[in-house]
Amino acid sequence: MEFRIEQDTLGEMKVPADKYWGAQTQRSVENFPIGTEKMPIEMIYAFAHLKKAAAVANGELGKLPEDKMNVIIEACDEILTGKWDQQFPLVVWQTGSGTQSNMNVNEVVAKRASELVGKEGFIHPNDDVNMSQSSNDTFPTAMHIAVYDEIEKRLKVALKQFKKTLKKKEKEYMDVIKIGRTHLQDATPLTLGQEISGWRHMIVRSEEMIDQAKEGLLNLAIGGTAVGTGINADPTFGDKTAKQLKKQTGYSFVSSKNKFHALTSHDEIVFVHGALKALAADSMKIANDVRWLSSGPRSGLGELSIPANEPGSSIMPGKVNPTQSEALTMAAVQVFGNDAAVGFAASQGNFELNVFKPVIVYNTLQSIRLLADGIRSFDERCALGIEANLDVIRGLMEQSLMLVTALNPHIGYEKAAKIAKMAHKDGTTLKKAALASGYVNENDYNRWIDPLQMVNLSEKKKKKE
Amino acid sequence: MEFRIEQDTLGEMKVPADKYWGAQTQRSVENFPIGTEKMPIEMIYAFAHLKKAAAVANGELGKLPEDKMNVIIEACDEILTGKWDQQFPLVVWQTGSGTQSNMNVNEVVAKRASELVGKEGFIHPNDDVNMSQSSNDTFPTAMHIAVYDEIEKRLKVALKQFKKTLKKKEKEYMDVIKIGRTHLQDATPLTLGQEISGWRHMIVRSEEMIDQAKEGLLNLAIGGTAVGTGINADPTFGDKTAKQLKKQTGYSFVSSKNKFHALTSHDEIVFVHGALKALAADSMKIANDVRWLSSGPRSGLGELSIPANEPGSSIMPGKVNPTQSEALTMAAVQVFGNDAAVGFAASQGNFELNVFKPVIVYNTLQSIRLLADGIRSFDERCALGIEANLDVIRGLMEQSLMLVTALNPHIGYEKAAKIAKMAHKDGTTLKKAALASGYVNENDYNRWIDPLQMVNLSEKKKKKE
Amino acid sequence: MEFRIEQDTLGEMKVPADKYWGAQTQRSVENFPIGTEKMPIEMIYAFAHLKKAAAVANGELGKLPEDKMNVIIEACDEILTGKWDQQFPLVVWQTGSGTQSNMNVNEVVAKRASELVGKEGFIHPNDDVNMSQSSNDTFPTAMHIAVYDEIEKRLKVALKQFKKTLKKKEKEYMDVIKIGRTHLQDATPLTLGQEISGWRHMIVRSEEMIDQAKEGLLNLAIGGTAVGTGINADPTFGDKTAKQLKKQTGYSFVSSKNKFHALTSHDEIVFVHGALKALAADSMKIANDVRWLSSGPRSGLGELSIPANEPGSSIMPGKVNPTQSEALTMAAVQVFGNDAAVGFAASQGNFELNVFKPVIVYNTLQSIRLLADGIRSFDERCALGIEANLDVIRGLMEQSLMLVTALNPHIGYEKAAKIAKMAHKDGTTLKKAALASGYVNENDYNRWIDPLQMVNLSEKKKKKE
Amino acid sequence: MEFRIEQDTLGEMKVPADKYWGAQTQRSVENFPIGTEKMPIEMIYAFAHLKKAAAVANGELGKLPEDKMNVIIEACDEILTGKWDQQFPLVVWQTGSGTQSNMNVNEVVAKRASELVGKEGFIHPNDDVNMSQSSNDTFPTAMHIAVYDEIEKRLKVALKQFKKTLKKKEKEYMDVIKIGRTHLQDATPLTLGQEISGWRHMIVRSEEMIDQAKEGLLNLAIGGTAVGTGINADPTFGDKTAKQLKKQTGYSFVSSKNKFHALTSHDEIVFVHGALKALAADSMKIANDVRWLSSGPRSGLGELSIPANEPGSSIMPGKVNPTQSEALTMAAVQVFGNDAAVGFAASQGNFELNVFKPVIVYNTLQSIRLLADGIRSFDERCALGIEANLDVIRGLMEQSLMLVTALNPHIGYEKAAKIAKMAHKDGTTLKKAALASGYVNENDYNRWIDPLQMVNLSEKKKKKE
Repeated sequence: MEFRIEQDTLGEMKVPADKYWGAQTQRSVENFPIGTEKMPIEMIYAFAHLKKAAAVANGELGKLPEDKMNVIIEACDEILTGKWDQQFPLVVWQTGSGTQSNMNVNEVVAKRASELVGKEGFIHPNDDVNMSQSSNDTFPTAMHIAVYDEIEKRLKVALKQFKKTLKKKEKEYMDVIKIGRTHLQDATPLTLGQEISGWRHMIVRSEEMIDQAKEGLLNLAIGGTAVGTGINADPTFGDKTAKQLKKQTGYSFVSSKNKFHALTSHDEIVFVHGALKALAADSMKIANDVRWLSSGPRSGLGELSIPANEPGSSIMPGKVNPTQSEALTMAAVQVFGNDAAVGFAASQGNFELNVFKPVIVYNTLQSIRLLADGIRSFDERCALGIEANLDVIRGLMEQSLMLVTALNPHIGYEKAAKIAKMAHKDGTTLKKAALASGYVNENDYNRWIDPLQMVNLSEKKKKKE
Repeated sequence: MEFRIEQDTLGEMKVPADKYWGAQTQRSVENFPIGTEKMPIEMIYAFAHLKKAAAVANGELGKLPEDKMNVIIEACDEILTGKWDQQFPLVVWQTGSGTQSNMNVNEVVAKRASELVGKEGFIHPNDDVNMSQSSNDTFPTAMHIAVYDEIEKRLKVALKQFKKTLKKKEKEYMDVIKIGRTHLQDATPLTLGQEISGWRHMIVRSEEMIDQAKEGLLNLAIGGTAVGTGINADPTFGDKTAKQLKKQTGYSFVSSKNKFHALTSHDEIVFVHGALKALAADSMKIANDVRWLSSGPRSGLGELSIPANEPGSSIMPGKVNPTQSEALTMAAVQVFGNDAAVGFAASQGNFELNVFKPVIVYNTLQSIRLLADGIRSFDERCALGIEANLDVIRGLMEQSLMLVTALNPHIGYEKAAKIAKMAHKDGTTLKKAALASGYVNENDYNRWIDPLQMVNLSEKKKKKE
Repeated sequence: MEFRIEQDTLGEMKVPADKYWGAQTQRSVENFPIGTEKMPIEMIYAFAHLKKAAAVANGELGKLPEDKMNVIIEACDEILTGKWDQQFPLVVWQTGSGTQSNMNVNEVVAKRASELVGKEGFIHPNDDVNMSQSSNDTFPTAMHIAVYDEIEKRLKVALKQFKKTLKKKEKEYMDVIKIGRTHLQDATPLTLGQEISGWRHMIVRSEEMIDQAKEGLLNLAIGGTAVGTGINADPTFGDKTAKQLKKQTGYSFVSSKNKFHALTSHDEIVFVHGALKALAADSMKIANDVRWLSSGPRSGLGELSIPANEPGSSIMPGKVNPTQSEALTMAAVQVFGNDAAVGFAASQGNFELNVFKPVIVYNTLQSIRLLADGIRSFDERCALGIEANLDVIRGLMEQSLMLVTALNPHIGYEKAAKIAKMAHKDGTTLKKAALASGYVNENDYNRWIDPLQMVNLSEKKKKKE
Repeated sequence: MEFRIEQDTLGEMKVPADKYWGAQTQRSVENFPIGTEKMPIEMIYAFAHLKKAAAVANGELGKLPEDKMNVIIEACDEILTGKWDQQFPLVVWQTGSGTQSNMNVNEVVAKRASELVGKEGFIHPNDDVNMSQSSNDTFPTAMHIAVYDEIEKRLKVALKQFKKTLKKKEKEYMDVIKIGRTHLQDATPLTLGQEISGWRHMIVRSEEMIDQAKEGLLNLAIGGTAVGTGINADPTFGDKTAKQLKKQTGYSFVSSKNKFHALTSHDEIVFVHGALKALAADSMKIANDVRWLSSGPRSGLGELSIPANEPGSSIMPGKVNPTQSEALTMAAVQVFGNDAAVGFAASQGNFELNVFKPVIVYNTLQSIRLLADGIRSFDERCALGIEANLDVIRGLMEQSLMLVTALNPHIGYEKAAKIAKMAHKDGTTLKKAALASGYVNENDYNRWIDPLQMVNLSEKKKKKE
């Protein structure tokens, strides 16, 4: 391996000759041989957006000459194409301000930009690329950009498709009456479409929560520089950069009203992650319902069939398992763990800075990714293929005793209870027990015990948005 | 102890003669000798509101005769005065639907209402008080009412006062320039007022989050009855009851659009609790800053003085400790734990019901209470009494080397670094090192190194909302 | 209300005339109006044990005159009878060292002891009761005593009984062959007794973990006083007190080898709580299995019947729910939340002290209590009454296709898979499909497909300890 | 890209021509495009050990011909060299039993083993490599092997070195008397060596906990096959395989006494992770102490100097930050999050299997890795370079008021408190205030107020193990 010598304020460093990074990145590579988790590439792209926007703002302010500005922009645009992904080797477990990843970007941009104009050292990592900035405001700015973008580009796309699938299944099965279950015990009936509508509304609501919460991410720390006062930056720099970022990304970023808050609290991300946790809880519930309803094939509930995507067992031939439910619930569990890490980390700021930024953004981006991918996979390979086993559903519903509930308004809770108990004890049907009880005659029974009426379908349909 | 005999569908039970509850409550008392945590009284009051509103709605629908309606209302109003608090003995660790607490309320209301008209058995717990309802829709409805109300009545009141205190201190100390600290290391200066403004914005923002999130609580499960279909309830019952609840409480409750979601997912509360966690994280940060800045009195940072509320040590005479910070950070830690419990519980619903409702509401109400009380106590007994130790603050600021940052735009990052290192190594002042370096002359130094300029105060003031 | 005046080093305080506590307790009552959670009474008793043991040690060392020693012992013994429970009004959310609860005990002991000899002020809270001690070593000592004792007296008693119940059921159903389920899907058979043996081993193992972990609690901080150096205590005081505590409690307490560790790290309790979490996870699994296996009565798995302890629904007559499972799983969820709080709190020590002690011990004692009570209640009111529904079990087993697994060694995995798929597709029995496939003849089939052989019962029995 | 056709019981699949895996692995690649987290390579190696041991056991039992056995062993040994790392492409988010990773290993071993003898299809993935096994017993077996091995090979090595460093510093600074701090407030003195001894004991104790807990991992599920009954395996297969694994690894593995427990509960890993969390809490405490004690350089506590490994700021020239503390505390936070995920996942087993295995092992291995690497890096790049700033330490100690505590035994707590308060109020020294109070004469003062005596050093030294 060949090396070149790079220098920073602590002295010289040997850097692999084919790498664009400089001395500070190299120091971090050597000083933090911890774990295998790289700073997420989404953070690098967010930084590239930010360095570009900052260059534009500095140019507008007359602080950065146009030739420098242009070549910084060009280098950033190249990074955004993905062609320099290998130039960002740092791990999550570095300095808690993310300074080294900021410098990694500064160094690569400076080196590549200088190369583009053919003048080594033309662009300085600190004085030019990092002009008017500090890691302390750029790193949290990049966090917000990256998390917002991943929600938009990855998560919401998956949710949109999943809602469509659920809507389709909901319609398809709106009239299929089935036994309800509460406490895992037989309850009054509903339709399969109604049950699915509950799942869909979980996704609808948790998406709304994520949308609400993500608005806070539009407030950017940029302009605060070292401690929130904006030292070494023009007072308009934050606003100008945010405006330029909006132009680049289409997201309505603004410069945060209070930079002291922006550097030291990550409440915005805690809030977003809380909404992600709500989605994780709902995903877990849906994935669990699907696997329970499709349990069997012979000795389970068996109301649904789901696609058989792979052999289920290395020892039991012919076994098919609800593996997409399993992957999604495992992803949900991970989101719960990540939520604990994010909240903990956010509470540990001191004075003018919170130095748990990399671990916060790592967990948050992982959560978004796992939810998005997990839901999309579950949607495409399981939910879309759900088929109702109509015979099973009808059989289970018809033998249920909980239809007795419909008698309450007519004969009262206590007499109705007696009928249900009698039927259960004697192993007979509800009707037989009801007639035997003397509380109901056959005519009334047939009128009152009507599953279709019990599910209030028309009402449901009227209310459907 | 004297007893009377009560009955439910499982048979007879001996109930203490002076108690208004019935057989089902008594069964729960005997069947769940678990822990000491009672169903929070806020839930009982929420139920009283709900039972009253339901009676009104049933009355309007012509299902409940006026005399019955009136006396149910009267009994509920009595419960809301607090005079029957001893009639609700059940613990949190009961059935996961909260059925037994719903029945506890039904039984007490029925008994007391019957007593009010002097006719034993005039009101039936199930057929009258619980008319058109199920535990499965009333318990989650009561959860939303109780949590919303506690946020309004307890938490927001505490936050309002705390923000006022912070605003006061922020103004008072807006011009006191002090050393900034990042990574616990000396950084560029800011004013104490700016630092406090960061704290205030944390509270402002996390309160906004709670406000956003609590809107979801306005959606009530009522009308869904047993499984979400609304069996045994008039289709308009949910809306009517919600409207009446709005009249009683002033909160804009509505009947949830999708009851299947409302019975089985508690994403709304997960989201609210995520916002509470953001507040907990911010509270921890603020309380930590306060105790660190007031550490000493002789061997700590000592920039602030806080009230001495009690002797700090049983062995060290004269010791005074930041005990309000300690109480608040312990409360914050509890909120983090509760958040884990709430999210976990919310993920465990099956089919038409989530049966972890009591543990969810117990933790949520505890979190609100601890944050509200902890913040109010911290506010009144600590924050309000914060005094800046101006001499210490000035001394620490003046000896700092990080003012060197202001040289960057003039001589570049690398030369500035050399000056700072030299001063550090030689134990000299920044000015001496700067002049010795030859990079700066005295005139420029005095012009460039101006802490007041570094804190951008005017800018700060312009942006103040 | 009448008052008397008490005094501490900060000045005078009005204390309710009928209370034994003094000025410092009263200050805490007034300074911490936070939440409703009192310092657990188990901590007060642990303190009473400790103050008594300390008095003995101080007596032996000739530092505390015999008359003082005797009367302190007498007062402590009175507290241990429970008669002074109302004298300890402080909440959890106080100073993080628990100083105020230490002083509460010191004050009550001093007051009561002085009263016993009829000389007001005869015993001084600090100089006599707290002699050779600091809150910083007594509070963590009391934590270890209380947690250890609760594990012994409450938790292990419940576990012992539960294991007995499981053993009984395991034996009773050792020969009942049933379908196994993995991924919720039908799998190869096992016996119900084997399934229950798995539950029992979970309890056995997690109890062993708790036993292992609790040994660390035997190391006591006592002797470290203010910062771990043992200032103002005789170097043998810690050992003497520990020995005396062993005499009083029967537990093999020793004075910790390193007091700096003992005051500032609560790793011992984190470890214990991790073992409690393992038990919570196992409890959740068992309680879930029980409720799923007893789901129905008509539309669930229905393999087990469990006792009907109360009416299950306020709207659905005759419904019976697995409420003991629900209470236990909610308790388990709480333990998970508590575990997060305990670990977080334990990580937040600074320098010579961790000031999150009250929140740590509150959560730990709650976890033990909830697990003990929850398991005991589940045991007595559910597990003990489990009955196998033999017809259902046999029916589900016989129709299963996964018996095909036994063909692997004879015809290979791939051919076996073909048979299972064919049977599933055609809705026929395994035997018919097997014979139709041509891979097996009837004779072999009957020999190879023998559920009894598949469960390896004799092997199981041989290995049973 | 070129492909070949592979087949499993669901049909044909196109597999990249240069890959050794088969149809089932390929299905998983295509069915689970979720996240980027690969099944940890440590799991693959554990599987290689296991497949080898199983081949030996099957050979001994006469079920696997010697030529097959030998070539399976050879293929496994090759995998253990690391040369086939690229053949295991599956992600964590797959089926919850890890079946697909088991099959990935089976397929690669079969393919490579067949290639080694030059006979395509000579070894069958299921019938030969997976002989007598199921994913349901092999995956949890591999989990135990991998976690145990990582603790031994990675974590304990790091801890050993760290303890050595701490021991060295402890000795070096055993006589340096410094101010103690409790509640962040000045307290009685101790020596720096004593303080460091507290850190060391944290590591000693949490390592002991990990050692205790890891013993449970020696119990292996192997032999349980599909549901714990051991169907299709010889009753001695589990023991034989465990014995062979012991021979291969040197770890005292045994076949678990109860396989039903082993397949469905992961309490063993919850317990281990609880011990890891204790270590994380201790690591956080130590890393925090180090960064606080080295805070400054001019406006912090400044008692310690730590190595300057890299430029600390992109904007503040000359800044040096405690970055190793930051990396380690971030790693600790991750372990806390992982602990929540592991416990949750372990609670979600149903019937004969827990299907959250991959997420459990992923988090556990990450925790071990992060703790090991984070501690090693902190040790080498920070702890080893700690230097005491003796002047600062002496200065802070001498001006402290808490030495007053030594007066308690002589003049009582209350008079001592008066002296301390007077000194604090007047800003004078303790001695002046003491003499002015009239409670102490100079002679006594000099005798009683002796910091060296207060730290009880000889006692400390006597007890040192």
